Amino acid sequence: MSKLIIPRKTVYRLSLYYRALQRARANRVETVSSAALAKAAGVKPTQLRKDLTYFGQFGTRGLGYNVEQLSARLTDVLGTTRLQPVILVGAGNLGSALLKYPGFAKEGFEVAAAFDLNPSRGRAKELGVPVLPMTKLKDLVHEQLVKMAILTVPAHVAQEVANELIEAGIMAILNFAPIILQVPDHVVVNNVDVAIELENLSYFIQ
Amino acid sequence: MSKLIIPRKTVYRLSLYYRALQRARANRVETVSSAALAKAAGVKPTQLRKDLTYFGQFGTRGLGYNVEQLSARLTDVLGTTRLQPVILVGAGNLGSALLKYPGFAKEGFEVAAAFDLNPSRGRAKELGVPVLPMTKLKDLVHEQLVKMAILTVPAHVAQEVANELIEAGIMAILNFAPIILQVPDHVVVNNVDVAIELENLSYFIQ
Repeated sequence: MSKLIIPRKTVYRLSLYYRALQRARANRVETVSSAALAKAAGVKPTQLRKDLTYFGQFGTRGLGYNVEQLSARLTDVLGTTRLQPVILVGAGNLGSALLKYPGFAKEGFEVAAAFDLNPSRGRAKELGVPVLPMTKLKDLVHEQLVKMAILTVPAHVAQEVANELIEAGIMAILNFAPIILQVPDHVVVNNVDVAIELENLSYFIQ
Repeated sequence: MSKLIIPRKTVYRLSLYYRALQRARANRVETVSSAALAKAAGVKPTQLRKDLTYFGQFGTRGLGYNVEQLSARLTDVLGTTRLQPVILVGAGNLGSALLKYPGFAKEGFEVAAAFDLNPSRGRAKELGVPVLPMTKLKDLVHEQLVKMAILTVPAHVAQEVANELIEAGIMAILNFAPIILQVPDHVVVNNVDVAIELENLSYFIQ
C-alpha cells in the first residue's frame, strides 16, 4: 500500500493543511497560494509543496490550490471521510474534560463510549456518552468496529489497560499517561504528555 | 550559547530519558545500559547514544550509565533544577482538568496562577490555585518572573490572548487551542491538539 511510505511527520502536517483549508473554506476562499496555505498551517512553503507531492499534482503555477479539491483529497488520505468511532478509557478529570470537547464530531470522530472502573449513570448524562465498566470493552469494540482509543488512565495502570485494549482489537492509542507503552508492531501509539511539553519549552527559555 | 545548537527533537527525547531515569531511581537502580534506558524511553539505542553525545561523555563501555549522574546532568540541561513558575490561561473544562494534574510539581513546575474571563473564589478553592481576571496578568507575570504559559482558551480568542501573554513577557506557550498561533521569533510555541493526533492515528489504521 502506497500510503505506508508517507513519512509520519508528513501525515501530521497534512492535518494542519486540512484544518487551514477548512478555515479558508469557511471564509469562502476558492483558491489559496502555497505561501498563504503554508503560513496558515505554520510551516515553510517549500515543506508544504514537498508534502503535497506525495499525492500527485495539485495546484497550478501562479494560481495556487483549489480549496475544495485539495480538502477532499486530504480527507480521503487521512481516512476521516466517514465518522470514525473512538472510545475513551479513564473518565477522570482529564478524560471528562476531553469528552466535553465539542470538536470531535467536527473533526470526523465520534466517541462511541467511555470506559471507567467506576461507571455511573449520572456521569454518563453529564458527559453525553455511555460510561461503561471495563467488562463491556471487548463486546463494544467488536460490535462497533472500533479501532482507536484515547487512554486517560493513571500512569501506574496504563500499560495493563493498553494490553486489554489491544487484546480487544484496538490498533491505535492516543496515550495521555506519562509512560512509554510497550505495544506490538501492528499497534500505533501517539503520546500527549503535558509535563514533557513543558519541560521542552523550559529548555528554550533558559 | 551552545544549547541553541541542540536539535529540538533531541531536547524532547531528553525529557523521555529523564523520566525513564526517575523510574530507575525509584526502583533503586544505580546503573542502566543504553539498551535498557532506550527501551524504557521508547527510542532506539543508537538514537539514545547519539543524543547524549551532545552533553559530553557519559557512561562506561560495558557498565552503562550512572543513573544519579545522568539525571543531574539532564535536569541541568532541561532547566528544571528549580521549580519554574507557569501560568494557565482559560480555566474551562480542559484548563481545570490540567490544574488538577498532580504531576506538575513532581516534574519541576509550579502553577503560579490561572487566569479566566470569569474568575471566582469558589473555583480557586476547588482548583488549588488563585483564579484571576485577565487585568491582573501583566503584574503577576512581572512580579513572579513567569516566562511560560499554558493556553486553554477557545480557538477563536486564542491569538488575541496569546498577543496579551507575549506583551506581558511570556516567552513560551503550550497551546491547546486548535489553531496555529502567529508569534514573534523570540517566542516558542508547542502545540497539543487532540483532534490532530486522532487524525494522525486514523491514517495509520486504514
